[in-house]
Amino acid sequence: MGLVHHSNYLRYFEIGRTEFLRSAGGRYREVEEAGLYVVVVHIDCRYRASARYDDEIQIVTRIAKITAAKIIHEYEIRRGDELLVQATVTLAVIDKNGQLQRVPEALLT
Amino acid sequence: MGLVHHSNYLRYFEIGRTEFLRSAGGRYREVEEAGLYVVVVHIDCRYRASARYDDEIQIVTRIAKITAAKIIHEYEIRRGDELLVQATVTLAVIDKNGQLQRVPEALLT
Amino acid sequence: MGLVHHSNYLRYFEIGRTEFLRSAGGRYREVEEAGLYVVVVHIDCRYRASARYDDEIQIVTRIAKITAAKIIHEYEIRRGDELLVQATVTLAVIDKNGQLQRVPEALLT
Amino acid sequence: MGLVHHSNYLRYFEIGRTEFLRSAGGRYREVEEAGLYVVVVHIDCRYRASARYDDEIQIVTRIAKITAAKIIHEYEIRRGDELLVQATVTLAVIDKNGQLQRVPEALLT
Repeated sequence: MGLVHHSNYLRYFEIGRTEFLRSAGGRYREVEEAGLYVVVVHIDCRYRASARYDDEIQIVTRIAKITAAKIIHEYEIRRGDELLVQATVTLAVIDKNGQLQRVPEALLT
Repeated sequence: MGLVHHSNYLRYFEIGRTEFLRSAGGRYREVEEAGLYVVVVHIDCRYRASARYDDEIQIVTRIAKITAAKIIHEYEIRRGDELLVQATVTLAVIDKNGQLQRVPEALLT
Repeated sequence: MGLVHHSNYLRYFEIGRTEFLRSAGGRYREVEEAGLYVVVVHIDCRYRASARYDDEIQIVTRIAKITAAKIIHEYEIRRGDELLVQATVTLAVIDKNGQLQRVPEALLT
Repeated sequence: MGLVHHSNYLRYFEIGRTEFLRSAGGRYREVEEAGLYVVVVHIDCRYRASARYDDEIQIVTRIAKITAAKIIHEYEIRRGDELLVQATVTLAVIDKNGQLQRVPEALLT
């Protein structure tokens, strides 16, 4: 039905980075087992056109920057040749008390 | 249960601006009846801490800027004195063909 | 813009039962601190008409049944006099290993 | 992070039926162009275990029943051999005024 709500693209980005990490041999489960959590700390997202529910879309994920404290991904949501949405999402890693931690090896593949 | 997914805050902002417009006497229904659509074109969102499902949170909405083509709102999601999330959301108005339109009077209250 | 996606009503029910529990003096935080989780095990939901984004809706929450193992709530989503959605949601309580537990006192207010 | 919110499975079912229709040669776009809308009128959903964000899951979609007025699909969400969620979703077709219509040919592939 109609257009995809703008908040859903954040879930598409999440799918993008999960698949990216998986295909790169990342070990997310290990991170969780170490009592660490990967959290989103910043999103910058530009919407050019909206996908419709029936559309086949492509989620393009790239690493923009990795530091000791952050991973920044760039995303493009495309429908064929058309760019629909473009975003930068910054992740950080925290422990159970919400304290920032170094990005663990298991994510740096 | 547990933490609120980061994409949900975009829905909270939407609730914030809907209530803001309503309380200011805006006439959103009129806009829709004129065949116009208010769309999100840009989001910039910083997450400092996460709300839990049981938390009472406050959605603070302010107009940051209005031009002929855009409405920019600033949001703060607060839990008591604590700032959880801070964002800027830019809206534009399009017609059925996706062409940008002037922001209609009915939204400028 | 437009109609509310049918999955969102499940979040409205969640808001309904959270507020219900809060107003009844329930102590959800205590449940979580005891290492227990309240989970949804069954949903039966009938949609009669859809809310639009601008609509003011009412979430009516009632306890239908409580047993040692389950809490069943009934919900109505109303827009003025009109019934939009009607549902039954069954909750159970599990521990960290996913094992079913008795419904704790803190929820039985 | 952690577990998938129970409302998200309704989106997975939607993905399931969209792909099912597409692979069967259905013409959803035609339905929309005829001014008709496919809407969810009933959901019955049982949750046995929750997926985690990193999990690879399988969405199994079957047609349970088609009548002049309704399409009923059955879904299973599986993680390997394990059944996580089981559901029945009933769709109907309405026009712009919300009046029920016959299920169009384009969906009956």
